[in-house]
Amino acid sequence: MEELVLTEPNEETIVEEQAPKKVNVDLGVPKTQRKRLVIIGGGFAGIHLVKKLSKSSYQVVLIDKHNHHNFQPLLYQVATSGLEADSIAYPIRKVLSDHEDYHFRMGEAQEIKPHEHVLVTDKGSIAYDFLVIATGAKTNYFGMENVAKHAYPMKSVAQAMKLRNTILENYEKALLTNNLDEREELMNIVIAGGGPTGVEMAGALAEFKRYIMPADYPDLNIERSKIYLVELLPELLPPMSDEASKKSEEYLRKMGVIIKTETKIEDYDGQVVKTDKGDIPSRMLIWTGGVSAASIPGLPDEVMAKGGRIKCNGFGQVEGFERIYALGDVAQFHSEEFPKGHPQLAAVAVDQGEFLGKHFSRMHKGEDLKPYKYNNKGSMATVGRSKAVVDLPNWKFQGAFAWFVWLGVHLFSLIGFRNKIVTFTNWVSNYFSRDRHSRVIIKD
Amino acid sequence: MEELVLTEPNEETIVEEQAPKKVNVDLGVPKTQRKRLVIIGGGFAGIHLVKKLSKSSYQVVLIDKHNHHNFQPLLYQVATSGLEADSIAYPIRKVLSDHEDYHFRMGEAQEIKPHEHVLVTDKGSIAYDFLVIATGAKTNYFGMENVAKHAYPMKSVAQAMKLRNTILENYEKALLTNNLDEREELMNIVIAGGGPTGVEMAGALAEFKRYIMPADYPDLNIERSKIYLVELLPELLPPMSDEASKKSEEYLRKMGVIIKTETKIEDYDGQVVKTDKGDIPSRMLIWTGGVSAASIPGLPDEVMAKGGRIKCNGFGQVEGFERIYALGDVAQFHSEEFPKGHPQLAAVAVDQGEFLGKHFSRMHKGEDLKPYKYNNKGSMATVGRSKAVVDLPNWKFQGAFAWFVWLGVHLFSLIGFRNKIVTFTNWVSNYFSRDRHSRVIIKD
Repeated sequence: MEELVLTEPNEETIVEEQAPKKVNVDLGVPKTQRKRLVIIGGGFAGIHLVKKLSKSSYQVVLIDKHNHHNFQPLLYQVATSGLEADSIAYPIRKVLSDHEDYHFRMGEAQEIKPHEHVLVTDKGSIAYDFLVIATGAKTNYFGMENVAKHAYPMKSVAQAMKLRNTILENYEKALLTNNLDEREELMNIVIAGGGPTGVEMAGALAEFKRYIMPADYPDLNIERSKIYLVELLPELLPPMSDEASKKSEEYLRKMGVIIKTETKIEDYDGQVVKTDKGDIPSRMLIWTGGVSAASIPGLPDEVMAKGGRIKCNGFGQVEGFERIYALGDVAQFHSEEFPKGHPQLAAVAVDQGEFLGKHFSRMHKGEDLKPYKYNNKGSMATVGRSKAVVDLPNWKFQGAFAWFVWLGVHLFSLIGFRNKIVTFTNWVSNYFSRDRHSRVIIKD
Repeated sequence: MEELVLTEPNEETIVEEQAPKKVNVDLGVPKTQRKRLVIIGGGFAGIHLVKKLSKSSYQVVLIDKHNHHNFQPLLYQVATSGLEADSIAYPIRKVLSDHEDYHFRMGEAQEIKPHEHVLVTDKGSIAYDFLVIATGAKTNYFGMENVAKHAYPMKSVAQAMKLRNTILENYEKALLTNNLDEREELMNIVIAGGGPTGVEMAGALAEFKRYIMPADYPDLNIERSKIYLVELLPELLPPMSDEASKKSEEYLRKMGVIIKTETKIEDYDGQVVKTDKGDIPSRMLIWTGGVSAASIPGLPDEVMAKGGRIKCNGFGQVEGFERIYALGDVAQFHSEEFPKGHPQLAAVAVDQGEFLGKHFSRMHKGEDLKPYKYNNKGSMATVGRSKAVVDLPNWKFQGAFAWFVWLGVHLFSLIGFRNKIVTFTNWVSNYFSRDRHSRVIIKD
């Protein structure tokens, strides 16, 4: 494999001196003596690590398949026409632009060669002093090939756009057929997974059906359009409190969502969702039913934990590999409190990214190293306008105030001032008009 | 061909009574006696006609390939990462939602059968009392097949998104090669056509190069990235005043754009643009070099004018066909002042759409019919921040004030309050930060 091209301004060849050197890094040291930190993944963990490193004297190389960070908690609003894609996507190059010695390369990590200290990508291989695996999680279909083939996942902005296009196209197609079975298939939507994403998606679709469809599709009998939420466990939002689970179920039922708990999806051919409790005709199965860690080949089996997560010590260092770290959804930090790993949440990824930034700074300065400590910030989910559930460590609440808290936290967490302001504008407009402005099908 | 399905709320079969009846239409007449107006195209002409008809007693059927109206004058800002796609796209269904008897169908018009009073679409055929052809213009490659295959047009939102994705991908690819020729090809951009779209595109790309690329791509030698604007005629903005042409050329040259007037593009293989004055290596040829009217088969050759436009009388009625009208770019209204037809401008299309709305209302009320009269509102183009050229009928001006006028007119013309406010937010943010926030590659 050829080496990944890492050129410098005004130089048109690979800079040989950029090969990693084992020297003590110091602020202001010449570029040739800097340690190279290769980060795979510009998700919450990777981006927050990079931000912390902006004043560091490491050379930073970030690799991602996409050229943007994607704010996953709001993907469902893109998929349901409430937000434009660009307001939850943030250019990765912009995050790095205040670091003097950074390099972003759009590419896919393929293999780690831990003994050679080399990462292989589809665009070339690169040597590292330190490697940080922050690849997040990928959709898990639990081995159901047909489901993987026909269901719609929602992990990237492009997938959210495809969902939006397809939902809207299905309604348009429903208008063009006199076959009632086909019409029902086209208008029904099944959501697999009663976690926060599934609950939020179901709520947003229920609002779309109630406030948008009657005016937009006077020619359709809207009552034919049914929204199903299917969950394997007895309750929605399984990791949250009982209050949150019960209240979200109550909200969704009132909004007309058909909730099927203790129901297992077994197969899907693109037209009929087969469950252990019966069939549901639907051309749209949205899969939020599970994730597994998106690890990269090359690490030995001993360090792989359940769900593909990588076993790390308390500092995020992969067990047995001094120079390799893992962060966020893909990592399982050693913790007495969380023997199975910390929750796979955005907040944890952000937290661990910032932690590792400080850790590298401490290492560099020769300070005492402190292991990561999880600070539970609670969890929350929104169901609809003025309807949300919030679990804080010592306070659980639901309703309008919870909804405002949810809005505030998400707005605050969005990266970039422009994204915050455009999202806020959309939310205010959606609130007063009950409209969903982005119901446009954009595809080639 | 089967009939296009036009069902009514709560009715699941084709409503037979909707077949067109030749009765006098009156407000409040039963649905079965309304005249059916079929409009092809939801562009400026079609949308403004529909808006005027919202209180009419015609049955309105609008057919478009897309489910959204697309604000073409700002496509170039989507293509250059300045605006998100959704802020210049407006859901067609929303325009119609206050009309009691409207039907939108997403589909493509294929053929008119003028003697049977039937329009054939790819989704079925439909009988009409009146047909309005408002299909606009399509990109014209003047028979150059290679150019058509490899160049990038910019007439739809999806095409603008593809342009944006490809421009950004090319820069990313340039970083990954050590081949200097390939790098140059990837970084060069050639724009064909010195009309308003070409000028605006060139200016926006020059600003992107100057304000975004140095920070975003410190690894690239930005000077290698050249922007060429190629025009066949001796001047830019040929239909505008001399002052406008000269000033826009002066602006662009100062911004670093290489202007090649009196230059003819002859071929393009995807890597080298061949012109009669020499070759330009570039992977990106943006084609704004010409349009032809997007007429529909079925009308006799006698009514077809130059450039595919349809000859109409002073009321927009297609010559010799009482029930068929044409509007906007596809139409050539009879006019002593404009023997070759009115300019193919958005303002004219809006104007003619509104005119025809009034015309139908006059017909319906039995009032005197007045032919269309073109009210020249002038024309304008923007080159960059504080740089625009405006030709009003009695006043020509350029510079910062012209730029504010351009901003105001375009903001005002955008359909939908939310689109106005989001676009305004982006413009203010872009103005102060000189940033282009939407530089995200979103594709499947």
